[in-house]
Amino acid sequence: MNKNRIEAFSDGVIAIIITIMVLEIKLPHGGEFAALKPLLPVFLSYVLSFVYVGIYWNNHHHLLGGVTKINGRVLWPNLHLLFWLSLVPFATDWMGENRFSAATLAVYGFVLFMSSLTFRVLQTRLVEANEPDSPLAQAAARNWKARLSPLFYSLGIAASFWSAWVAGGIYVGVALLWLVPERRIDHTAANAKTQNL
Amino acid sequence: MNKNRIEAFSDGVIAIIITIMVLEIKLPHGGEFAALKPLLPVFLSYVLSFVYVGIYWNNHHHLLGGVTKINGRVLWPNLHLLFWLSLVPFATDWMGENRFSAATLAVYGFVLFMSSLTFRVLQTRLVEANEPDSPLAQAAARNWKARLSPLFYSLGIAASFWSAWVAGGIYVGVALLWLVPERRIDHTAANAKTQNL
Amino acid sequence: MNKNRIEAFSDGVIAIIITIMVLEIKLPHGGEFAALKPLLPVFLSYVLSFVYVGIYWNNHHHLLGGVTKINGRVLWPNLHLLFWLSLVPFATDWMGENRFSAATLAVYGFVLFMSSLTFRVLQTRLVEANEPDSPLAQAAARNWKARLSPLFYSLGIAASFWSAWVAGGIYVGVALLWLVPERRIDHTAANAKTQNL
Amino acid sequence: MNKNRIEAFSDGVIAIIITIMVLEIKLPHGGEFAALKPLLPVFLSYVLSFVYVGIYWNNHHHLLGGVTKINGRVLWPNLHLLFWLSLVPFATDWMGENRFSAATLAVYGFVLFMSSLTFRVLQTRLVEANEPDSPLAQAAARNWKARLSPLFYSLGIAASFWSAWVAGGIYVGVALLWLVPERRIDHTAANAKTQNL
Repeated sequence: MNKNRIEAFSDGVIAIIITIMVLEIKLPHGGEFAALKPLLPVFLSYVLSFVYVGIYWNNHHHLLGGVTKINGRVLWPNLHLLFWLSLVPFATDWMGENRFSAATLAVYGFVLFMSSLTFRVLQTRLVEANEPDSPLAQAAARNWKARLSPLFYSLGIAASFWSAWVAGGIYVGVALLWLVPERRIDHTAANAKTQNL
Repeated sequence: MNKNRIEAFSDGVIAIIITIMVLEIKLPHGGEFAALKPLLPVFLSYVLSFVYVGIYWNNHHHLLGGVTKINGRVLWPNLHLLFWLSLVPFATDWMGENRFSAATLAVYGFVLFMSSLTFRVLQTRLVEANEPDSPLAQAAARNWKARLSPLFYSLGIAASFWSAWVAGGIYVGVALLWLVPERRIDHTAANAKTQNL
Repeated sequence: MNKNRIEAFSDGVIAIIITIMVLEIKLPHGGEFAALKPLLPVFLSYVLSFVYVGIYWNNHHHLLGGVTKINGRVLWPNLHLLFWLSLVPFATDWMGENRFSAATLAVYGFVLFMSSLTFRVLQTRLVEANEPDSPLAQAAARNWKARLSPLFYSLGIAASFWSAWVAGGIYVGVALLWLVPERRIDHTAANAKTQNL
Repeated sequence: MNKNRIEAFSDGVIAIIITIMVLEIKLPHGGEFAALKPLLPVFLSYVLSFVYVGIYWNNHHHLLGGVTKINGRVLWPNLHLLFWLSLVPFATDWMGENRFSAATLAVYGFVLFMSSLTFRVLQTRLVEANEPDSPLAQAAARNWKARLSPLFYSLGIAASFWSAWVAGGIYVGVALLWLVPERRIDHTAANAKTQNL
């Protein structure tokens, strides 16, 4: 088993996912500023999805960075995660083109929900392949964000049918949740490596 | 000869193949759930091809992982395999858009058939470049799935003209064949490394 | 923190950005030379953006090449830079298709402006993660081109509303500025490594 | 200067170029075999270009594999080569869609011509960065195929205006020239490493 090649392949797939989304921003008709206005929902969807795919890359990076042993049982969970991430560009574009209609918000949330579930499956498999008290196992045990995210996405899916603002707000909120404390943990870890959060 | 760079290039090409297929899922007209329904055959084709390309990545990974010597004679067989895999997105999309018509199922099977043949050529070249009793040679000798796959794809091509369900069932079945025992071998290998299958 | 993986991911994203721009050169109607003529503005935009993305790849390469320590605080500044670079294909295509209209030139300049700002943020974070007198910090301190570029792009944006030739000239000029002295520095460094520029 | 990262970036760009060409094979109208027939020129163009891009990847691989020293002066020649290779998908598609019209054959030949020239510039720069009698310099000195290729492409461009068959034949012939002896050299090298060709 070659950890480097799994990382390289995953990096390749995630790099393509995060980049091809921009291909789906269709050129506006006309070359003045006003022509950009109808693109706003598409652009906002793009920003949100760029942040989400970036979060997954960061998490994948941290997850595999803490791994010392790996076996063939992680290949398919890893591909399963990549499968759901690969649907992000479609869900993003559908949502942006239909100005955050209920069904598109629910499908977008479902893709995020499945990505978070499959990320947890991958994490569990990697923990099983390593010692029960490995740093990876400890990090996974206190990874409350990974545990709560699927719940929030479920709330977002339910809210899609009631209010686009609430559903969108939940998706943005979970993204911010992942963005902000990431820094705090890193900062804390740099100052006091022995302290457990 | 640099094995790492062959792996990196192949990873890049396979990562792109597996990801650009999603670009071919055209946006439905309308933002409600019903608009997704006509996409079902396209989506199912996508899932099957994602699994197949994932299988080839796994197999390629295992094949090159067992290699200690490499020479310039493997470059073109490797590119030949990548050529046929590069046609998977086209065959997938054509099949999905035409709801599994006979010709599209046959062409899809043909692309899988050529991919499996070229994979075997690559395997043979790599075995030749190494010792006759290398682990790679032993693994290749007992790789009955790689030997049987072209046969199954031929049956699938023939069945395309008779029943889409049978042809599709064969393609799905071969994919499952590759998915399932992969785990068993790895599991067995982890428990008892001396046991030959 | 794994510097190699950040480089690999950034390489992947930048490689995709620089390559997918060519997908946006639509095929002309007809197979004679005259059919290529309307493509000229699109092609010129492509060349300029290819050079710009190449400059960013070079700078990113040099920036991370000089780094010995890295921490989690650079991940998001790096993704922020990649976000703005990912908009280059859109801005390029919009500018080319609308024959360098004022708004498209201003938006193109804005994407370059934000890319240069986020590059400087990344540079600052990397300097902070290393010693105050590290080679990276010294190189950053004398990197006057990185300091002046945002200013030039601002001038280009302002000029967009006045003359397309002046705005375009500024963008081309800044690209040349980055291209030319790169060689001189390297040449000098090869001859006399102790000399500070 | 980091040779690995130049290789990784070039691999990424070449992998994308070789793969996105397949996106330009438009789906035929209809799901029967006859619908594939109009695709034949597009498909043949694709095969030829896949082989050419594969040849460039192989040559690039061999060229950088023989390099022990590298400096900043190779970055732009490398990007210049990648620029011309990035136009291959456009030239391929235009040629295929217009059934090998004179202008499209000439433009295709011109892209190959510029690729071969820029490859030679890169080779020269790399030789300059290394010892005059390095293995790289010796390999470059006897690389008659790299010297003759631009000449052949010029003949092909001239022939485009006279006969599509002759021009196409020249392009196919040069590709075969690169494919065939590659194996012989490698084979000879394996048997008798001291023998100069």
